[in-house]
Amino acid sequence: MNGKMKAIVKHRKGFGAELQMVDIPQIKENEVLIKVKATSICGTDVHIYTWDAWSESRVNPPYVFGHEFSGEVVEIGSKVTSVEIGDFVSAETHLVCYECPQCLTGQYHICKNTKIIGVDTDGCFAEYVALPAVNLWKNPKEMPFDVASIQEPMGNAVHTVLAGDVAGKSVAVIGCGPIGIMAVGVAKAAGASQVIALDLNDYRLNLAKEMGATTVVNSKNEDPLAKINELTDGNGVDVVCEMSGHPIAMDQGFKMVTNGGRVSILSLPVRPVEIDITNDVVFKGITVQGITGRKMYETWQQVSRLLKSGQVDVTPLITHHFSLEEFKKGFDLMIEGKCGKVVLHP
Amino acid sequence: MNGKMKAIVKHRKGFGAELQMVDIPQIKENEVLIKVKATSICGTDVHIYTWDAWSESRVNPPYVFGHEFSGEVVEIGSKVTSVEIGDFVSAETHLVCYECPQCLTGQYHICKNTKIIGVDTDGCFAEYVALPAVNLWKNPKEMPFDVASIQEPMGNAVHTVLAGDVAGKSVAVIGCGPIGIMAVGVAKAAGASQVIALDLNDYRLNLAKEMGATTVVNSKNEDPLAKINELTDGNGVDVVCEMSGHPIAMDQGFKMVTNGGRVSILSLPVRPVEIDITNDVVFKGITVQGITGRKMYETWQQVSRLLKSGQVDVTPLITHHFSLEEFKKGFDLMIEGKCGKVVLHP
Amino acid sequence: MNGKMKAIVKHRKGFGAELQMVDIPQIKENEVLIKVKATSICGTDVHIYTWDAWSESRVNPPYVFGHEFSGEVVEIGSKVTSVEIGDFVSAETHLVCYECPQCLTGQYHICKNTKIIGVDTDGCFAEYVALPAVNLWKNPKEMPFDVASIQEPMGNAVHTVLAGDVAGKSVAVIGCGPIGIMAVGVAKAAGASQVIALDLNDYRLNLAKEMGATTVVNSKNEDPLAKINELTDGNGVDVVCEMSGHPIAMDQGFKMVTNGGRVSILSLPVRPVEIDITNDVVFKGITVQGITGRKMYETWQQVSRLLKSGQVDVTPLITHHFSLEEFKKGFDLMIEGKCGKVVLHP
Amino acid sequence: MNGKMKAIVKHRKGFGAELQMVDIPQIKENEVLIKVKATSICGTDVHIYTWDAWSESRVNPPYVFGHEFSGEVVEIGSKVTSVEIGDFVSAETHLVCYECPQCLTGQYHICKNTKIIGVDTDGCFAEYVALPAVNLWKNPKEMPFDVASIQEPMGNAVHTVLAGDVAGKSVAVIGCGPIGIMAVGVAKAAGASQVIALDLNDYRLNLAKEMGATTVVNSKNEDPLAKINELTDGNGVDVVCEMSGHPIAMDQGFKMVTNGGRVSILSLPVRPVEIDITNDVVFKGITVQGITGRKMYETWQQVSRLLKSGQVDVTPLITHHFSLEEFKKGFDLMIEGKCGKVVLHP
Repeated sequence: MNGKMKAIVKHRKGFGAELQMVDIPQIKENEVLIKVKATSICGTDVHIYTWDAWSESRVNPPYVFGHEFSGEVVEIGSKVTSVEIGDFVSAETHLVCYECPQCLTGQYHICKNTKIIGVDTDGCFAEYVALPAVNLWKNPKEMPFDVASIQEPMGNAVHTVLAGDVAGKSVAVIGCGPIGIMAVGVAKAAGASQVIALDLNDYRLNLAKEMGATTVVNSKNEDPLAKINELTDGNGVDVVCEMSGHPIAMDQGFKMVTNGGRVSILSLPVRPVEIDITNDVVFKGITVQGITGRKMYETWQQVSRLLKSGQVDVTPLITHHFSLEEFKKGFDLMIEGKCGKVVLHP
Repeated sequence: MNGKMKAIVKHRKGFGAELQMVDIPQIKENEVLIKVKATSICGTDVHIYTWDAWSESRVNPPYVFGHEFSGEVVEIGSKVTSVEIGDFVSAETHLVCYECPQCLTGQYHICKNTKIIGVDTDGCFAEYVALPAVNLWKNPKEMPFDVASIQEPMGNAVHTVLAGDVAGKSVAVIGCGPIGIMAVGVAKAAGASQVIALDLNDYRLNLAKEMGATTVVNSKNEDPLAKINELTDGNGVDVVCEMSGHPIAMDQGFKMVTNGGRVSILSLPVRPVEIDITNDVVFKGITVQGITGRKMYETWQQVSRLLKSGQVDVTPLITHHFSLEEFKKGFDLMIEGKCGKVVLHP
Repeated sequence: MNGKMKAIVKHRKGFGAELQMVDIPQIKENEVLIKVKATSICGTDVHIYTWDAWSESRVNPPYVFGHEFSGEVVEIGSKVTSVEIGDFVSAETHLVCYECPQCLTGQYHICKNTKIIGVDTDGCFAEYVALPAVNLWKNPKEMPFDVASIQEPMGNAVHTVLAGDVAGKSVAVIGCGPIGIMAVGVAKAAGASQVIALDLNDYRLNLAKEMGATTVVNSKNEDPLAKINELTDGNGVDVVCEMSGHPIAMDQGFKMVTNGGRVSILSLPVRPVEIDITNDVVFKGITVQGITGRKMYETWQQVSRLLKSGQVDVTPLITHHFSLEEFKKGFDLMIEGKCGKVVLHP
Repeated sequence: MNGKMKAIVKHRKGFGAELQMVDIPQIKENEVLIKVKATSICGTDVHIYTWDAWSESRVNPPYVFGHEFSGEVVEIGSKVTSVEIGDFVSAETHLVCYECPQCLTGQYHICKNTKIIGVDTDGCFAEYVALPAVNLWKNPKEMPFDVASIQEPMGNAVHTVLAGDVAGKSVAVIGCGPIGIMAVGVAKAAGASQVIALDLNDYRLNLAKEMGATTVVNSKNEDPLAKINELTDGNGVDVVCEMSGHPIAMDQGFKMVTNGGRVSILSLPVRPVEIDITNDVVFKGITVQGITGRKMYETWQQVSRLLKSGQVDVTPLITHHFSLEEFKKGFDLMIEGKCGKVVLHP
């Protein structure tokens, strides 16, 4: 397809972004052109927008950013068989090599040569996006576009929570950004007997409550370890989902988990973290998991089915809608932390 | 404690049972005397009552039968430290040896020397029951006695359903006796995206529906394989819980499971079953699990927490209540199949 | 590459095959042409050669059959990046769709749309073979071609044995065809404390002994269940690898496994098998696994490393070598059962 | 049994110990008196002997220390049924409560109320030791006493190595004290394709080589990360067994493991350790396991069978034998690091 389209362009090294008219991307034989119907703002997008140290080291403006979306297929390359024009799709954000030892053993999400859509390549904050067919996930026709758009971050939540058993177990979610809040909903849907959400932000703790948390703890106001102790008859929780990245909260996570428990870490602390390996890991016999991305495509299947069946309802979490032109309002809210997911509609 | 108590006695080899006054049992140093508050009728009790071939080969009347109950501790042996007078308890039915290779590796539920309460020893269809402290499970004070009584069979359901992942998966439960119906509730609580209940009895399919089945199939009225195919876009279900024991239903179970799926069998078919190993097991790469008893006491912990948290509500399943004296009414209903769980109150 | 080559052609429906001169195959953009250095005869090839009922229903002569081989890449398609001219390779035999639910969740080996090289497409009993690059596995330069050729069936053995723990466990291998014999070697290498090989053929039991069996049992001469009982202090074995496909042997497998044990079935019985589900599966709480193909490519990685490290030495099993022209000698030996693996050298 | 016996007594708070004549211990109804045939010195015993900060905080002299041994049952309590006079036994060192949530779910090795034989109670550096029957493990009559004595620390090695798959995988063992050296032997026996041993002590690296290490790396002389990179084609190892407790070595362990790999930590660093959670745990998607004690009694079964089958031969590791009277020579060697296991013979 030829022509121009609106896009949010990270136009230079530094704070901010610009709405520009750019060329509609051309597809290759194994690619697909998608008309974007909804696209949501991720914390990573905020890092790029505000231009932190990580962005400085990784990102090369000018380019179109954004990676969470849902849309409709409008053009397919000559070799594409897996989707058709008119299909509704979202996309896995990891572009993997299919040739390293991890890929060869089906662990695509930890491919050593991963590139990320909207970080290393042009993304979806635009009217159209061109992507490899192999990265697309088909959405049911009845799934709302805004819900479909947040499947990618929900995949992070599902990957973290379901990395071990949760039915009949107590689960603490530390850090209630949008993914933490979705983790609360997933743990509840998967049969957790207690889902305890911890954060410093009451707005987000309220969203966690709406998504099914059995207890919310504002760690500014009460001692999280004392509270967990009380809630678990002194035993600690079975599962900790660490989504804060804060060293104190992470240390509390290691202290609140029961002997033999699981600490699954999705967060990315900016500096090395001190851990009391002897007392908090070895003597307790716990398991610590690093979680990144989404299993391709086992996690997508889980996400899609949890949504379609109604086991998880993410609508309370989608708190704001804007047009593409209003993108700055969305970024401002994200920076302020006064929102759940913010969805842009091109 | 000395004195007499009411008890339902399997008084002779043959059909039926009698309410008799018998001695209150004396406890040993590691045993506990429990005042029975609620006791529920299991399919095994019906086999003993109606005196089938299995009963003839295993059971030695006269004795007090029954093994599902909840009650209050009224006396403890001199060596008992794990419970106190006044505690509310139920009991694991398997009396295991703690010395065979299975017990030594923590697989008590498949101990080679298992004896069963109410089958091989005196049971709980009585005002009091004496049991080893090691077999008791403490109940929360706020759990209703009738609910607490059916934890043992619910343990079978939990053991079967949670023997693998279910969150975001499609689960078929074949055979909707009380344990099948509880399996429906457990699968739903644990995040299954579809829970399909199959039986020939509409009364029980309705209970399954109440417990959360997303679809019920009466295999008398429609082809179960065609229906499963339709519900799963031709892929088959991820998990089959086989609780019917019927060879045709079991064969359908093997045919309705998708490649790589799981068939967990709790039922006890009376004769060997023909299985198409090549096409239904090997080429499909499925896993088949034999499930018996409850993991001691991992399963009890799961059951207790699923109930206490409200993730599973078994009250729709407890359809009938009688006094101990009215036990025949309960057995008649069980034989007829026109009930969920029947609870007797001594 | 243009020109003619020697190939063993299944020339018609019926017994036998013919050595013919045929066109060297042309490759497509994602394919690779390989000069075959060694190619081994599989039981499936014998079925096609002798033209049994399965072949009649599946195979369409005339075509080149064979699927186990090793060779050198001599030409690559324009889109191929994963291998280079001069690389040494073998191939995974399953051609999968990459689009069904099984493929999308990384379970390629149970793809619902699997085609098999040498059965559904032209194979490797020839001087050259053309295959999709995605199906190739690179071999170390120092691995002998005959050893590299039998990695594919060794993958079946590895997939079966390593489908659960074996270190410190007792393992019975029922059926000592070449894959069974390799299973013996793999179980020994993976730390099994006992590896008991069972068959009716002393020639093959001797090969099993050479590959590390701690006991061999000829079920014609002694009662396998009594022997297993004696070897395991009456407990039964922890793991059964069923590779015979014979209903009596399979039934013995279910009876010889201990409570909580594992029965992994790779064999393909020609008719449904009667199984005592109640006593041999449910009360024993065992796990039964259907095993097919090789995990793509986790199993290939395991095979390659077990061979390269010397943990498994398959050379005692490679008992016969012939030129391509002498193929009938190889098939005669296979039919007679007086061989391990037979390797043809084009 | 009445009378006096020789024992090594930790006689006071401070360095050293004394050989004394003390009363032979009296057994209770559930206990067993064992004549000690061989008893080996653990690193923990050295801590108590040299009286470090941990000992100061935990240990209450005077008492008999020591916890690794093998011996013969000479007297049994009135309630003991699991062993008989004349049986050969060793003992699990953890005395657990059987009542906490961990014990109730079969995770005895991480019981919250664990006491340790020879630390919290009288131990086995003596002619006789009295222990609960439930803690005894029966040894085969043909197992040498010195080998039987070191099953307990070998259990730590087995628990660590077999906490995940190793067949066909690359395994690094960091820290070659006696348990590290046994881990090398276990990894080799369980089918690891590479077993890389790392330490600063050439004496112990030589023992690791004798126990089957495919490569030994003295981290004083060469860069361990560069070496691992070279040995694994730049991929890193699949499994790290961390047994050094040193923060630099531990950090290297996290850096040398491949994406998706496993780091199993048995060591007890004396201070919190800085870990680069983001780059070494999360982005790599690894699993970190805290390992303590031995699974009761799954690990003992594995140890016993690996030894009995000859899959692991620990005799190269047993480098020194002394009489009980010569205990100071043994402790001196242990302090110096110029030994494998040191066995005392009462």
